[in-house]
Amino acid sequence: MSEDLYTFENPEFRKTYWHTCSHVLAQAVKRLWPDTKLAIGPSIENGFYYDLDSTETFTGDDLTKIEAEMRKICKEKLKLERFELPRAEAIAYMEEKGEPYKVELIQDLPEDAHISFYTQGEFTDLCAGPHLDSTVRIKGNGIKLTACNAAYWRGDSSRKQLQRIYGVAFPKKDELDAYIKQVEEARKRDHNKVGRELEYFTTVDVIGQGLPILLPKGARTIQLLQRWVEDTEQAWGYQLTKTPLMAKRDLYRISGHWDHYQDGMFIMGDPNDEEKECFALRPMTCPFQYQVFLNRARSYRDLPMRLGETSTLFRNEESGEMHGLIRVRQFTISEGHLIIRPEQLEEEFKGCLDLAKYMMETMGLAEDCSYRFSQWDPNNTGKYEGNPEQWEMAQSVMKTILDDLGVEYEIGIDEAAFYGPKLDIQCKNVFGKEDTLITIQIDMLLAEKFGMEYVDTDGQKKTPYIIHRTSMGCYERTLALLLEKYAGALPTWMAPEQVRILTITDRVDDYAYELKKKFTAMGLRAEVDDRNEKIGKKIREGQLEKVPYMLIIGDKEAEDGLVAARHRAEGDLGVMSADDFAALIKEVVDTKATK
Amino acid sequence: MSEDLYTFENPEFRKTYWHTCSHVLAQAVKRLWPDTKLAIGPSIENGFYYDLDSTETFTGDDLTKIEAEMRKICKEKLKLERFELPRAEAIAYMEEKGEPYKVELIQDLPEDAHISFYTQGEFTDLCAGPHLDSTVRIKGNGIKLTACNAAYWRGDSSRKQLQRIYGVAFPKKDELDAYIKQVEEARKRDHNKVGRELEYFTTVDVIGQGLPILLPKGARTIQLLQRWVEDTEQAWGYQLTKTPLMAKRDLYRISGHWDHYQDGMFIMGDPNDEEKECFALRPMTCPFQYQVFLNRARSYRDLPMRLGETSTLFRNEESGEMHGLIRVRQFTISEGHLIIRPEQLEEEFKGCLDLAKYMMETMGLAEDCSYRFSQWDPNNTGKYEGNPEQWEMAQSVMKTILDDLGVEYEIGIDEAAFYGPKLDIQCKNVFGKEDTLITIQIDMLLAEKFGMEYVDTDGQKKTPYIIHRTSMGCYERTLALLLEKYAGALPTWMAPEQVRILTITDRVDDYAYELKKKFTAMGLRAEVDDRNEKIGKKIREGQLEKVPYMLIIGDKEAEDGLVAARHRAEGDLGVMSADDFAALIKEVVDTKATK
Repeated sequence: MSEDLYTFENPEFRKTYWHTCSHVLAQAVKRLWPDTKLAIGPSIENGFYYDLDSTETFTGDDLTKIEAEMRKICKEKLKLERFELPRAEAIAYMEEKGEPYKVELIQDLPEDAHISFYTQGEFTDLCAGPHLDSTVRIKGNGIKLTACNAAYWRGDSSRKQLQRIYGVAFPKKDELDAYIKQVEEARKRDHNKVGRELEYFTTVDVIGQGLPILLPKGARTIQLLQRWVEDTEQAWGYQLTKTPLMAKRDLYRISGHWDHYQDGMFIMGDPNDEEKECFALRPMTCPFQYQVFLNRARSYRDLPMRLGETSTLFRNEESGEMHGLIRVRQFTISEGHLIIRPEQLEEEFKGCLDLAKYMMETMGLAEDCSYRFSQWDPNNTGKYEGNPEQWEMAQSVMKTILDDLGVEYEIGIDEAAFYGPKLDIQCKNVFGKEDTLITIQIDMLLAEKFGMEYVDTDGQKKTPYIIHRTSMGCYERTLALLLEKYAGALPTWMAPEQVRILTITDRVDDYAYELKKKFTAMGLRAEVDDRNEKIGKKIREGQLEKVPYMLIIGDKEAEDGLVAARHRAEGDLGVMSADDFAALIKEVVDTKATK
Repeated sequence: MSEDLYTFENPEFRKTYWHTCSHVLAQAVKRLWPDTKLAIGPSIENGFYYDLDSTETFTGDDLTKIEAEMRKICKEKLKLERFELPRAEAIAYMEEKGEPYKVELIQDLPEDAHISFYTQGEFTDLCAGPHLDSTVRIKGNGIKLTACNAAYWRGDSSRKQLQRIYGVAFPKKDELDAYIKQVEEARKRDHNKVGRELEYFTTVDVIGQGLPILLPKGARTIQLLQRWVEDTEQAWGYQLTKTPLMAKRDLYRISGHWDHYQDGMFIMGDPNDEEKECFALRPMTCPFQYQVFLNRARSYRDLPMRLGETSTLFRNEESGEMHGLIRVRQFTISEGHLIIRPEQLEEEFKGCLDLAKYMMETMGLAEDCSYRFSQWDPNNTGKYEGNPEQWEMAQSVMKTILDDLGVEYEIGIDEAAFYGPKLDIQCKNVFGKEDTLITIQIDMLLAEKFGMEYVDTDGQKKTPYIIHRTSMGCYERTLALLLEKYAGALPTWMAPEQVRILTITDRVDDYAYELKKKFTAMGLRAEVDDRNEKIGKKIREGQLEKVPYMLIIGDKEAEDGLVAARHRAEGDLGVMSADDFAALIKEVVDTKATK
């Protein structure tokens, strides 16, 4: 290995560094609370964690104590040494150490697995490695334990609840400081904080995790985005559909979801009782929307048939995996299918990409987006339908289109849909984490399964191709990304409240409500703050609530038909006529400016 | 009894007449196919039916044969005579007659029931009566058997499938003829026919019954109605919400739905396993929307809080009960809750009623609507929550409001929601059948259950009242009523396609697409029919598809910027400038005219 593999920029080295940190963490905890049982302790995207079963409930003070002990361990220059044991001995070894979770892990390993351990000083852990060669390689004051959360053993909510201690570590103290500062900055923008504080959404225990409640502000912004998408699609030649959110298992048997995705679906009724009706909530819209095509005989004249729907989908995920508006059990997407003649593939694919770009650019998210070409894995064909020839063809068509368009993309092997390759448009959030915003997929398999066909110009019956695509992948997720991107100050055109009229004295209340009426008639969303409060307080509150424009109204303004306008970011805009302000904000809204 | 009770206008007499007809029907079938087993045979809203278990599959010819036999029985002047039997004898009697369904019915009667039978000639049926005194009272040629459908024994899809023969009968032949004509007329307008033929919706077996697929035309009209309702509510001071479609059973336990409505809900997971999460799809929006109020502490300043949502609901009904867009398992409603101070009840209730009236009048449905004041039943309190004092108070408040407003209403005993009385606005369809279009309900119970409170002007914490209400009860049902009301020719403002431009020659294609662009920019929905077909055929098709306006374009029109306009009902509107036509249709759309 060349020296530069050992730099922190190398993701592999970083993983190894953090993984060794997790062992140091576990060792420190065992020294401080010897009866603690160890579960698992991997490196993750940003740092590491260890799941622990301890009678101690770890507090912030405890984390400080553990950090100190970790620094001591680093200074002790303990060598990490690997050894293997046969299965029975490995089990006996961990039983003797009183580590039941490790015993369970070993028991679940394949019969022929090499069972390896790493020792550092008095501490030994079951581990496949690799690791740094000594604890001294870790910079003690570059370590920070960041949080302690509950986590179920093996992510299974029916099993024991453990404590998960998170940490991060860097080879230099100033790198840690920079990282902490960046995380704090991101945290301020975290939609899970900002979105709740600004009352865009909430969650409640009695309803369940992953089922966010969109409060009036969140509901309004999603309504605005949804109407914009529906209207744009209509202008781009899409037909709207509205199909059911559930179906009998029969439909999912044809689509393949019953075999490939049953665990991810919410099922109503006994899936194994063939005598009774069994329904499932839909995890996708595809086979529902195909019924629109199937409603009557089709000819080449009907194609391309572009179908769009504001569709609600459901995914039966574990409670532990839920997060704000990003990981949810129910979500709304602008899903659509283009049913096309094979020779229309390139043009229609380009159309989908253009639409996606327009959406990203208008929302101001384009700079945070990148493209991922998700392909199948020829070595893992069991996950996929269709034969290798079909896959190679679909992927090569997609590659040609992307190269022709000059789209820069990364390739994701084994990330395709089970029916075809995908182009995923990934958007980075403030923490640097990527999520799929929009997807465009080529499908040469499902049309045949559903018996879809059209009469071509030559009078022959043919099977169409299908493009699966979204314009707005998931409205809830997009709202989260927007709240983070703009730190809660959504662009005026999508802001739930666009103008707030603040009265200095109740003598101007009538004028304030006249203004509200004027702006409302223009299709703007305006409110009046006529409380008997100091104007400074009213402005401060409007600012905190990120209202784009505030109009301050006193006697002089009321007399002369004026407004003293200010923008939340630009500050004072001066005194102007109500009409001039109306023209100013109309321009901002109509152009969908990002301010 | 006075003589006039025996006229057909008296609903009680009509029921008796039709009930006796059902016995005559069963007697005729038993004469023709003696091995037929009898299930039940009641009178219904328009006529009667009998459910039969027969080896014969009844055809149209069979129905004619049965009608003839029924006429014979009428002429035979058979007296109907009632007698009672003790339970054991009654069972033995029906066992001897080989009527297993009747045996089951007797076995299910309460121990102390009087078990009565009616005999006419050789035929005897288990029956509580009452009946006409002789079959001669029935006018033989006033009888018509109208249909034969499948029906499950006791409506239970896991039990035997029977045949249900429907019939109707009148004391005069010309009354029957008039009725048949009226039904035929209604059938032409039946949304289940018109809506499918005009491609507003469809249903497919693999998805399931009661889960209609809204095709592009249906989806567009519902989108337009939905936006209209959302915008109107916004203008009326409503805040929009978007809450989850499912929740853990915990939520329904608080609301009372888990106890009162579990059979009507779609449940995901084992309802009896308390260790695992169990979710249910929502049959209503109430406790979801309350979370918006509960999101933070509230004061009198926050009230009235008017919350509106375009909400999808689910009802787990039997497959046999499904019908087109009227009886469905999933539907969308504009549901809302007004959380108010008690002293705001009258004003807010009036506001809801005004909004409802505006909706009905704008859609042109007002003349088909009537009001039903649904109350609890003091003799059946088990179905309801709360104590008699609360019920009496809520009902008396509602009565006062309705009387003050001069609303004429019928009273429905034992038809209230389990939490309070309702005002249901009923709409008659073309068959004369009533369905609820809009509902307004007073609720003095649920706020307390959910711990909702506000700080009043006096600094005291108080419990608000809640009004549950809809603006558009069920979009699918409303679409059905509109399709029937207008025989598929929806008013221009809600028509999916408003203008169709028909070209006489391909020399005017450019002009046609220019016109389309012009109208689209005005927010209209316009299409071009530039097929190489005769203009007569194009007009005929547009007429059949009920497109409100057609513009016929030839060389002359293209040269001079004219259009030859026609309206589907008014016919030729003459040649006019494109601008004049634009002004004409804009007026029709902006005023939401019913043409």
